[in-house]
Amino acid sequence: MKGILYGIGVGPGDPSLLTLKAKQVLEEADRIFIPVTKIGEESKAFEIVKQVVEIAQEKVVEVVFAMKRNREEQEEGWEKATKQILSYLEQGERAVLITIGDVSIYSTAFYVCDRVKKAGYEVTMVPGVPSFCAGASLAGISLVEGRESLMVIPSLKGMEQIEQVLPFFENLVIMKSARFIGQIEDMIAKQTNIKAYVLSNIGMENEYIGELDSKREYGYLTTVILKKKDQLL
Amino acid sequence: MKGILYGIGVGPGDPSLLTLKAKQVLEEADRIFIPVTKIGEESKAFEIVKQVVEIAQEKVVEVVFAMKRNREEQEEGWEKATKQILSYLEQGERAVLITIGDVSIYSTAFYVCDRVKKAGYEVTMVPGVPSFCAGASLAGISLVEGRESLMVIPSLKGMEQIEQVLPFFENLVIMKSARFIGQIEDMIAKQTNIKAYVLSNIGMENEYIGELDSKREYGYLTTVILKKKDQLL
Repeated sequence: MKGILYGIGVGPGDPSLLTLKAKQVLEEADRIFIPVTKIGEESKAFEIVKQVVEIAQEKVVEVVFAMKRNREEQEEGWEKATKQILSYLEQGERAVLITIGDVSIYSTAFYVCDRVKKAGYEVTMVPGVPSFCAGASLAGISLVEGRESLMVIPSLKGMEQIEQVLPFFENLVIMKSARFIGQIEDMIAKQTNIKAYVLSNIGMENEYIGELDSKREYGYLTTVILKKKDQLL
Repeated sequence: MKGILYGIGVGPGDPSLLTLKAKQVLEEADRIFIPVTKIGEESKAFEIVKQVVEIAQEKVVEVVFAMKRNREEQEEGWEKATKQILSYLEQGERAVLITIGDVSIYSTAFYVCDRVKKAGYEVTMVPGVPSFCAGASLAGISLVEGRESLMVIPSLKGMEQIEQVLPFFENLVIMKSARFIGQIEDMIAKQTNIKAYVLSNIGMENEYIGELDSKREYGYLTTVILKKKDQLL
Protein backbone atom coordinates (compact mmCIF):
# COMPACT_ATOMS: atom_id res chain seq x y z
CA MET A 1 0.00 0.00 0.00
CA LYS A 2 1.27 3.39 -0.99
CA GLY A 3 1.06 6.37 1.32
CA ILE A 4 -1.31 9.24 0.74
CA LEU A 5 -1.27 12.84 1.94
CA TYR A 6 -4.34 14.91 2.69
CA GLY A 7 -3.89 18.69 2.85
CA ILE A 8 -6.77 19.91 4.98
CA GLY A 9 -8.12 23.41 5.55
CA VAL A 10 -9.54 23.37 9.08
CA GLY A 11 -11.41 26.68 8.80
CA PRO A 12 -10.86 30.05 10.48
CA GLY A 13 -10.84 29.13 14.17
CA ASP A 14 -14.29 28.01 15.38
CA PRO A 15 -13.88 24.20 15.55
CA SER A 16 -17.52 23.70 14.54
CA LEU A 17 -16.57 25.15 11.13
CA LEU A 18 -14.48 22.08 10.35
CA THR A 19 -16.06 20.12 7.47
CA LEU A 20 -17.44 16.61 7.96
CA LYS A 21 -14.78 15.38 5.55
CA ALA A 22 -11.92 17.03 7.44
CA LYS A 23 -13.12 15.41 10.66
CA GLN A 24 -13.38 11.98 9.07
CA VAL A 25 -9.98 12.16 7.38
CA LEU A 26 -8.39 13.26 10.67
CA GLU A 27 -10.05 10.38 12.53
CA GLU A 28 -8.74 7.84 10.02
CA ALA A 29 -5.21 9.24 9.72
CA ASP A 30 -2.08 7.36 10.75
CA ARG A 31 -0.12 10.59 11.08
CA ILE A 32 -1.02 14.24 11.51
CA PHE A 33 1.50 16.92 10.58
CA ILE A 34 1.03 20.20 12.32
CA PRO A 35 2.73 23.35 11.05
CA VAL A 36 4.69 25.40 13.56
CA THR A 37 7.14 28.25 13.06
CA LYS A 38 9.45 26.56 15.58
CA ILE A 39 9.47 23.19 17.39
CA GLY A 40 7.44 23.12 20.60
CA GLU A 41 5.35 26.12 19.65
CA GLU A 42 1.54 26.02 19.79
CA SER A 43 -0.15 25.40 16.47
CA LYS A 44 -3.37 27.33 15.88
CA ALA A 45 -4.59 24.72 13.38
CA PHE A 46 -4.01 21.92 15.90
CA GLU A 47 -5.76 23.90 18.67
CA ILE A 48 -8.81 23.94 16.39
CA VAL A 49 -8.93 20.27 15.43
CA LYS A 50 -8.21 18.79 18.84
CA GLN A 51 -11.41 20.35 20.14
CA VAL A 52 -13.48 18.11 17.86
CA VAL A 53 -11.25 15.12 17.04
CA GLU A 54 -9.53 12.88 19.59
CA ILE A 55 -5.94 12.53 18.44
CA ALA A 56 -3.36 10.24 20.04
CA GLN A 57 -0.15 12.14 20.83
CA GLU A 58 2.05 9.59 19.02
CA LYS A 59 0.32 10.40 15.72
CA VAL A 60 1.30 14.04 15.86
CA VAL A 61 4.44 15.31 14.13
CA GLU A 62 5.48 18.95 14.00
CA VAL A 63 6.72 20.39 10.71
CA VAL A 64 8.54 23.69 10.77
CA PHE A 65 7.37 26.39 8.36
CA ALA A 66 9.59 29.23 9.44
CA MET A 67 8.75 32.71 8.18
CA LYS A 68 11.61 33.80 5.92
CA ARG A 69 11.95 37.06 4.05
CA ASN A 70 13.83 35.40 1.25
CA ARG A 71 12.10 33.07 -1.20
CA GLU A 72 15.13 30.78 -1.49
CA GLU A 73 15.31 30.18 2.26
CA GLN A 74 11.58 29.58 2.31
CA GLU A 75 11.84 26.98 -0.45
CA GLU A 76 14.58 25.23 1.52
CA GLY A 77 12.17 25.05 4.47
CA TRP A 78 9.38 23.59 2.34
CA GLU A 79 11.80 21.09 0.83
CA LYS A 80 12.82 19.96 4.30
CA ALA A 81 9.19 19.62 5.44
CA THR A 82 8.41 17.66 2.28
CA LYS A 83 11.24 15.19 2.94
CA GLN A 84 10.04 14.74 6.50
CA ILE A 85 6.50 13.94 5.30
CA LEU A 86 7.77 11.66 2.51
CA SER A 87 9.62 9.54 5.07
CA TYR A 88 6.23 8.59 6.56
CA LEU A 89 4.46 8.17 3.23
CA GLU A 90 7.19 5.71 2.19
CA GLN A 91 5.93 3.49 5.02
CA GLY A 92 2.47 3.50 3.38
CA GLU A 93 0.89 5.84 5.93
CA ARG A 94 -2.28 7.89 5.51
CA ALA A 95 -1.01 11.30 6.52
CA VAL A 96 -2.68 14.64 7.02
CA LEU A 97 -1.21 18.14 6.89
CA ILE A 98 -3.50 20.70 8.50
CA THR A 99 -3.74 24.40 7.79
CA ILE A 100 -5.91 27.29 8.98
CA GLY A 101 -8.73 28.46 6.71
CA ASP A 102 -8.75 27.01 3.20
CA VAL A 103 -5.84 25.08 1.73
CA SER A 104 -5.86 27.00 -1.59
CA ILE A 105 -5.87 30.50 -0.08
CA TYR A 106 -2.58 31.78 1.34
CA SER A 107 -1.62 28.42 2.81
CA THR A 108 1.94 27.21 3.19
CA ALA A 109 0.56 23.68 3.25
CA PHE A 110 -0.14 24.00 -0.48
CA TYR A 111 3.56 24.27 -1.35
CA VAL A 112 4.29 21.05 0.50
CA CYS A 113 1.28 19.23 -1.00
CA ASP A 114 2.50 20.25 -4.44
CA ARG A 115 6.02 18.92 -3.79
CA VAL A 116 4.71 15.64 -2.36
CA LYS A 117 2.58 15.18 -5.49
CA LYS A 118 5.59 15.84 -7.72
CA ALA A 119 7.46 13.17 -5.73
CA GLY A 120 4.88 10.68 -7.03
CA TYR A 121 2.46 10.34 -4.12
CA GLU A 122 -1.30 10.75 -4.15
CA VAL A 123 -2.32 14.06 -2.63
CA THR A 124 -5.89 15.10 -1.84
CA MET A 125 -6.67 18.67 -0.87
CA VAL A 126 -9.73 19.11 1.36
CA PRO A 127 -11.06 22.69 1.17
CA GLY A 128 -12.15 24.66 4.23
CA VAL A 129 -14.00 27.84 5.14
CA PRO A 130 -11.73 30.88 4.46
CA SER A 131 -11.36 33.43 7.26
CA PHE A 132 -12.94 36.24 5.24
CA CYS A 133 -16.15 34.23 4.69
CA ALA A 134 -16.41 33.51 8.42
CA GLY A 135 -15.70 37.17 9.18
CA ALA A 136 -18.46 38.37 6.85
CA SER A 137 -20.93 35.98 8.49
CA LEU A 138 -19.98 37.27 11.94
CA ALA A 139 -20.40 40.85 10.77
CA GLY A 140 -23.74 39.94 9.18
CA ILE A 141 -22.71 41.37 5.82
CA SER A 142 -22.29 39.89 2.36
CA LEU A 143 -18.89 39.92 0.71
CA VAL A 144 -20.17 40.12 -2.84
CA GLU A 145 -23.57 40.09 -4.54
CA GLY A 146 -25.16 39.83 -7.96
CA ARG A 147 -22.78 40.87 -10.75
CA GLU A 148 -20.29 42.59 -8.46
CA SER A 149 -16.66 41.56 -8.22
CA LEU A 150 -14.62 40.77 -5.15
CA MET A 151 -10.93 41.41 -4.61
CA VAL A 152 -8.76 40.03 -1.84
CA ILE A 153 -5.44 41.61 -0.90
CA PRO A 154 -3.42 39.72 1.72
CA SER A 155 -1.26 42.52 3.01
CA LEU A 156 -1.40 46.02 1.69
CA LYS A 157 1.78 47.39 0.11
CA GLY A 158 0.43 50.94 0.37
CA MET A 159 -2.67 53.07 -0.11
CA GLU A 160 -1.92 53.54 -3.80
CA GLN A 161 -2.69 49.83 -4.23
CA ILE A 162 -6.27 50.49 -3.12
CA GLU A 163 -6.58 53.62 -5.26
CA GLN A 164 -5.36 51.79 -8.38
CA VAL A 165 -7.91 49.02 -8.20
CA LEU A 166 -10.88 50.91 -6.76
CA PRO A 167 -12.40 51.85 -10.13
CA PHE A 168 -12.71 48.15 -11.02
CA PHE A 169 -14.28 46.80 -7.85
CA GLU A 170 -17.35 46.77 -5.78
CA ASN A 171 -15.88 44.87 -2.82
CA LEU A 172 -12.38 44.76 -1.45
CA VAL A 173 -11.10 42.54 1.38
CA ILE A 174 -7.80 43.74 2.84
CA MET A 175 -6.19 41.37 5.32
CA LYS A 176 -3.58 42.43 7.89
CA SER A 177 -4.52 46.06 7.43
CA ALA A 178 -4.20 47.42 10.99
CA ARG A 179 -1.41 49.88 10.23
CA PHE A 180 -3.42 51.47 7.40
CA ILE A 181 -6.66 52.02 9.35
CA GLY A 182 -6.09 55.76 9.75
CA GLN A 183 -5.27 56.23 6.06
CA ILE A 184 -8.26 54.12 5.01
CA GLU A 185 -10.49 56.33 7.15
CA ASP A 186 -9.04 59.45 5.50
CA MET A 187 -9.72 57.95 2.08
CA ILE A 188 -13.33 57.16 2.97
CA ALA A 189 -13.82 60.68 4.29
CA LYS A 190 -13.01 61.88 0.76
CA GLN A 191 -14.79 59.11 -1.15
CA THR A 192 -18.16 59.05 0.55
CA ASN A 193 -19.50 56.21 -1.56
CA ILE A 194 -17.37 53.66 0.33
CA LYS A 195 -18.34 51.90 3.52
CA ALA A 196 -15.75 50.08 5.64
CA TYR A 197 -16.20 47.17 8.03
CA VAL A 198 -13.50 45.91 10.36
CA LEU A 199 -12.99 42.34 11.58
CA SER A 200 -10.30 42.30 14.22
CA ASN A 201 -8.96 39.53 16.49
CA ILE A 202 -11.91 37.25 15.70
CA GLY A 203 -12.48 34.71 18.47
CA MET A 204 -9.68 36.23 20.56
CA GLU A 205 -9.22 38.94 23.15
CA ASN A 206 -10.14 42.44 21.93
CA GLU A 207 -12.41 41.05 19.22
CA TYR A 208 -14.05 43.81 17.21
CA ILE A 209 -16.58 43.37 14.43
CA GLY A 210 -18.23 46.46 13.07
CA GLU A 211 -17.91 49.67 11.16
CA LEU A 212 -14.48 51.25 10.94
CA ASP A 213 -13.62 53.37 13.96
CA SER A 214 -10.10 54.76 13.86
CA LYS A 215 -10.22 55.63 17.57
CA ARG A 216 -9.88 51.93 18.42
CA GLU A 217 -6.62 50.04 18.48
CA TYR A 218 -6.41 47.09 16.14
CA GLY A 219 -4.18 44.03 16.37
CA TYR A 220 -2.20 42.25 13.64
CA LEU A 221 -5.12 40.02 12.61
CA THR A 222 -7.29 42.85 11.33
CA THR A 223 -9.21 42.63 8.08
CA VAL A 224 -10.96 45.58 6.47
CA ILE A 225 -13.83 45.08 4.03
CA LEU A 226 -14.56 48.01 1.73
CA LYS A 227 -17.90 48.10 -0.08
CA LYS A 228 -19.02 50.75 -2.54
CA LYS A 229 -22.17 52.26 -1.07
CA ASP A 230 -24.17 52.39 -4.30
CA GLN A 231 -23.98 48.61 -4.08
CA LEU A 232 -25.32 48.48 -0.54
CA LEU A 233 -28.89 47.44 0.17
CA MET B 1 -39.36 32.29 23.11
CA LYS B 2 -38.53 34.36 20.06
CA GLY B 3 -37.78 32.75 16.71
CA ILE B 4 -34.31 32.68 15.21
CA LEU B 5 -33.13 32.30 11.63
CA TYR B 6 -29.89 30.60 10.58
CA GLY B 7 -28.62 31.35 7.07
CA ILE B 8 -26.40 28.40 6.23
CA GLY B 9 -23.89 27.91 3.44
CA VAL B 10 -23.92 24.17 2.70
CA GLY B 11 -20.80 24.15 0.53
CA PRO B 12 -20.31 23.53 -3.18
CA GLY B 13 -21.97 20.14 -3.68
CA ASP B 14 -20.06 17.34 -1.97
CA PRO B 15 -22.17 16.70 1.16
CA SER B 16 -19.05 15.86 3.17
CA LEU B 17 -18.02 19.51 2.77
CA LEU B 18 -20.86 20.61 5.04
CA THR B 19 -19.48 22.05 8.29
CA LEU B 20 -20.09 20.38 11.65
CA LYS B 21 -22.04 23.48 12.69
CA ALA B 22 -24.29 23.41 9.62
CA LYS B 23 -25.11 19.76 10.30
CA GLN B 24 -25.92 20.43 13.95
CA VAL B 25 -28.08 23.48 13.25
CA LEU B 26 -29.99 21.52 10.59
CA GLU B 27 -30.56 18.64 13.01
CA GLU B 28 -31.93 20.97 15.69
CA ALA B 29 -34.12 23.08 13.37
CA ASP B 30 -37.91 23.27 13.60
CA ARG B 31 -38.18 24.44 10.01
CA ILE B 32 -35.93 24.29 6.96
CA PHE B 33 -36.49 26.74 4.11
CA ILE B 34 -35.20 25.58 0.78
CA PRO B 35 -34.73 28.01 -2.09
CA VAL B 36 -36.27 27.07 -5.44
CA THR B 37 -36.82 29.10 -8.58
CA LYS B 38 -40.35 27.68 -8.77
CA ILE B 39 -42.49 25.50 -6.46
CA GLY B 40 -41.95 21.76 -6.84
CA GLU B 41 -38.53 22.17 -8.45
CA GLU B 42 -35.49 20.32 -7.10
CA SER B 43 -33.24 22.32 -4.83
CA LYS B 44 -29.51 21.72 -5.21
CA ALA B 45 -28.86 22.90 -1.65
CA PHE B 46 -31.45 20.46 -0.28
CA GLU B 47 -30.05 17.60 -2.39
CA ILE B 48 -26.74 18.21 -0.61
CA VAL B 49 -27.98 18.35 2.98
CA LYS B 50 -30.40 15.44 2.81
CA GLN B 51 -27.48 13.13 2.08
CA VAL B 52 -26.03 13.79 5.53
CA VAL B 53 -28.94 14.98 7.69
CA GLU B 54 -32.22 13.15 8.18
CA ILE B 55 -34.97 15.71 7.68
CA ALA B 56 -38.67 15.08 8.26
CA GLN B 57 -40.71 16.16 5.25
CA GLU B 58 -43.08 18.29 7.34
CA LYS B 59 -40.19 20.54 8.40
CA VAL B 60 -39.38 21.52 4.82
CA VAL B 61 -40.83 24.68 3.26
CA GLU B 62 -39.99 25.90 -0.22
CA VAL B 63 -39.25 29.60 -0.74
CA VAL B 64 -39.28 30.95 -4.26
CA PHE B 65 -36.28 32.99 -5.38
CA ALA B 66 -37.19 33.58 -8.99
CA MET B 67 -34.49 34.91 -11.30
CA LYS B 68 -35.58 38.36 -12.42
CA ARG B 69 -33.74 40.75 -14.70
CA ASN B 70 -35.13 43.73 -12.92
CA ARG B 71 -33.95 44.67 -9.42
CA GLU B 72 -37.38 45.91 -8.36
CA GLU B 73 -39.06 42.61 -9.23
CA GLN B 74 -36.28 40.75 -7.47
CA GLU B 75 -36.74 42.82 -4.31
CA GLU B 76 -40.45 42.04 -4.38
CA GLY B 77 -39.55 38.35 -4.45
CA TRP B 78 -37.16 38.67 -1.50
CA GLU B 79 -39.81 40.65 0.41
CA LYS B 80 -42.33 37.89 -0.16
CA ALA B 81 -39.86 35.18 0.94
CA THR B 82 -39.04 37.25 4.04
CA LYS B 83 -42.73 37.52 5.00
CA GLN B 84 -43.13 33.78 4.54
CA ILE B 85 -40.18 33.08 6.86
CA LEU B 86 -41.32 35.70 9.41
CA SER B 87 -44.67 33.93 9.75
CA TYR B 88 -42.80 30.92 11.16
CA LEU B 89 -40.42 32.96 13.32
CA GLU B 90 -43.43 34.67 14.91
CA GLN B 91 -44.34 31.23 16.28
CA GLY B 92 -40.94 31.10 18.02
CA GLU B 93 -39.43 28.56 15.63
CA ARG B 94 -35.72 27.84 15.05
CA ALA B 95 -35.59 28.14 11.29
CA VAL B 96 -32.85 27.53 8.75
CA LEU B 97 -32.46 28.93 5.24
CA ILE B 98 -29.94 26.94 3.21
CA THR B 99 -27.84 28.12 0.30
CA ILE B 100 -25.13 26.59 -1.91
CA GLY B 101 -21.50 27.51 -1.19
CA ASP B 102 -20.97 30.30 1.33
CA VAL B 103 -23.74 32.59 2.53
CA SER B 104 -21.73 35.80 2.03
CA ILE B 105 -20.65 35.10 -1.55
CA TYR B 106 -23.26 35.56 -4.29
CA SER B 107 -26.05 34.12 -2.19
CA THR B 108 -29.67 35.19 -2.47
CA ALA B 109 -30.18 33.90 1.07
CA PHE B 110 -28.20 36.89 2.35
CA TYR B 111 -30.83 39.38 1.15
CA VAL B 112 -33.51 37.54 3.08
CA CYS B 113 -31.36 37.17 6.22
CA ASP B 114 -30.75 40.92 6.12
CA ARG B 115 -34.47 41.69 5.86
CA VAL B 116 -35.35 39.27 8.67
CA LYS B 117 -32.75 40.95 10.89
CA LYS B 118 -34.18 44.39 10.09
CA ALA B 119 -37.61 43.01 11.09
CA GLY B 120 -36.16 42.55 14.60
CA TYR B 121 -35.30 38.85 14.68
CA GLU B 122 -32.02 37.23 15.61
CA VAL B 123 -30.18 36.02 12.52
CA THR B 124 -27.02 33.90 12.54
CA MET B 125 -25.08 33.33 9.33
CA VAL B 126 -23.10 30.08 9.19
CA PRO B 127 -20.32 30.28 6.58
CA GLY B 128 -19.58 27.45 4.14
CA VAL B 129 -16.90 26.38 1.67
CA PRO B 130 -17.18 28.54 -1.51
CA SER B 131 -17.28 26.72 -4.86
CA PHE B 132 -14.00 28.26 -6.06
CA CYS B 133 -12.09 26.92 -3.03
CA ALA B 134 -13.45 23.44 -3.63
CA GLY B 135 -12.62 23.73 -7.33
CA ALA B 136 -9.03 24.73 -6.62
CA SER B 137 -8.63 21.76 -4.28
CA LEU B 138 -9.99 19.39 -6.93
CA ALA B 139 -7.61 20.86 -9.51
CA GLY B 140 -4.74 20.57 -7.04
CA ILE B 141 -3.82 24.22 -7.45
CA SER B 142 -3.66 27.18 -5.09
CA LEU B 143 -5.91 30.17 -5.69
CA VAL B 144 -3.56 32.70 -4.17
CA GLU B 145 -0.19 32.64 -2.40
CA GLY B 146 2.17 34.87 -0.46
CA ARG B 147 1.62 38.55 -1.16
CA GLU B 148 -0.43 38.00 -4.31
CA SER B 149 -3.97 39.27 -4.73
CA LEU B 150 -7.06 37.36 -5.80
CA MET B 151 -9.98 38.68 -7.80
CA VAL B 152 -13.33 37.00 -8.30
CA ILE B 153 -15.69 37.97 -11.13
CA PRO B 154 -19.10 36.25 -11.08
CA SER B 155 -20.03 36.59 -14.72
CA LEU B 156 -17.88 38.30 -17.25
CA LYS B 157 -19.35 41.37 -18.96
CA GLY B 158 -16.71 41.16 -21.70
CA MET B 159 -13.03 40.53 -22.36
CA GLU B 160 -12.19 44.19 -21.72
CA GLN B 161 -13.09 43.57 -18.07
CA ILE B 162 -10.22 41.09 -17.83
CA GLU B 163 -7.82 43.37 -19.72
CA GLN B 164 -8.59 46.32 -17.43
CA VAL B 165 -7.80 44.52 -14.21
CA LEU B 166 -4.99 42.24 -15.37
CA PRO B 167 -2.17 44.67 -14.50
CA PHE B 168 -3.27 44.65 -10.85
CA PHE B 169 -3.68 40.95 -10.27
CA GLU B 170 -1.87 37.72 -9.91
CA ASN B 171 -4.94 35.48 -9.79
CA LEU B 172 -8.35 35.84 -11.34
CA VAL B 173 -11.36 33.57 -10.83
CA ILE B 174 -14.04 34.00 -13.51
CA MET B 175 -17.26 32.15 -12.83
CA LYS B 176 -19.82 31.27 -15.56
CA SER B 177 -17.22 31.88 -18.24
CA ALA B 178 -18.09 29.15 -20.78
CA ARG B 179 -19.00 31.52 -23.61
CA PHE B 180 -15.67 33.36 -23.34
CA ILE B 181 -13.41 30.28 -23.39
CA GLY B 182 -12.32 30.85 -27.00
CA GLN B 183 -11.53 34.51 -26.39
CA ILE B 184 -9.67 33.71 -23.17
CA GLU B 185 -7.56 31.22 -25.10
CA ASP B 186 -6.76 33.87 -27.74
CA MET B 187 -5.73 36.28 -25.00
CA ILE B 188 -3.42 33.73 -23.40
CA ALA B 189 -1.86 32.96 -26.78
CA LYS B 190 -0.79 36.61 -26.86
CA GLN B 191 0.07 36.98 -23.17
CA THR B 192 2.23 33.97 -22.57
CA ASN B 193 2.77 34.71 -18.88
CA ILE B 194 -0.78 33.59 -18.06
CA LYS B 195 -1.86 30.05 -17.32
CA ALA B 196 -5.53 29.05 -17.34
CA TYR B 197 -7.30 26.25 -15.49
CA VAL B 198 -10.88 25.22 -16.11
CA LEU B 199 -13.33 23.77 -13.59
CA SER B 200 -16.47 22.66 -15.40
CA ASN B 201 -19.60 20.81 -14.22
CA ILE B 202 -17.93 19.75 -10.96
CA GLY B 203 -19.55 16.63 -9.52
CA MET B 204 -21.86 16.33 -12.52
CA GLU B 205 -21.90 14.78 -15.97
CA ASN B 206 -19.13 16.04 -18.27
CA GLU B 207 -16.98 17.13 -15.33
CA TYR B 208 -13.69 18.62 -16.49
CA ILE B 209 -10.88 19.83 -14.27
CA GLY B 210 -7.65 20.79 -15.94
CA GLU B 211 -5.81 23.18 -18.17
CA LEU B 212 -7.84 25.21 -20.65
CA ASP B 213 -8.60 23.32 -23.83
CA SER B 214 -10.83 25.25 -26.23
CA LYS B 215 -11.59 22.10 -28.24
CA ARG B 216 -13.83 20.86 -25.43
CA GLU B 217 -17.41 21.98 -24.90
CA TYR B 218 -18.14 23.59 -21.57
CA GLY B 219 -21.47 23.86 -19.72
CA TYR B 220 -22.97 26.84 -17.89
CA LEU B 221 -21.23 26.03 -14.59
CA THR B 222 -17.73 26.65 -15.88
CA THR B 223 -15.14 28.58 -13.90
CA VAL B 224 -11.81 29.71 -15.32
CA ILE B 225 -8.86 30.46 -13.06
CA LEU B 226 -6.15 32.66 -14.57
CA LYS B 227 -2.74 32.73 -12.88
CA LYS B 228 0.21 34.83 -13.93
CA LYS B 229 3.00 32.39 -14.69
CA ASP B 230 5.80 34.31 -13.03
CA GLN B 231 3.87 33.57 -9.84
CA LEU B 232 3.71 29.83 -10.52
CA LEU B 233 5.95 27.42 -8.66
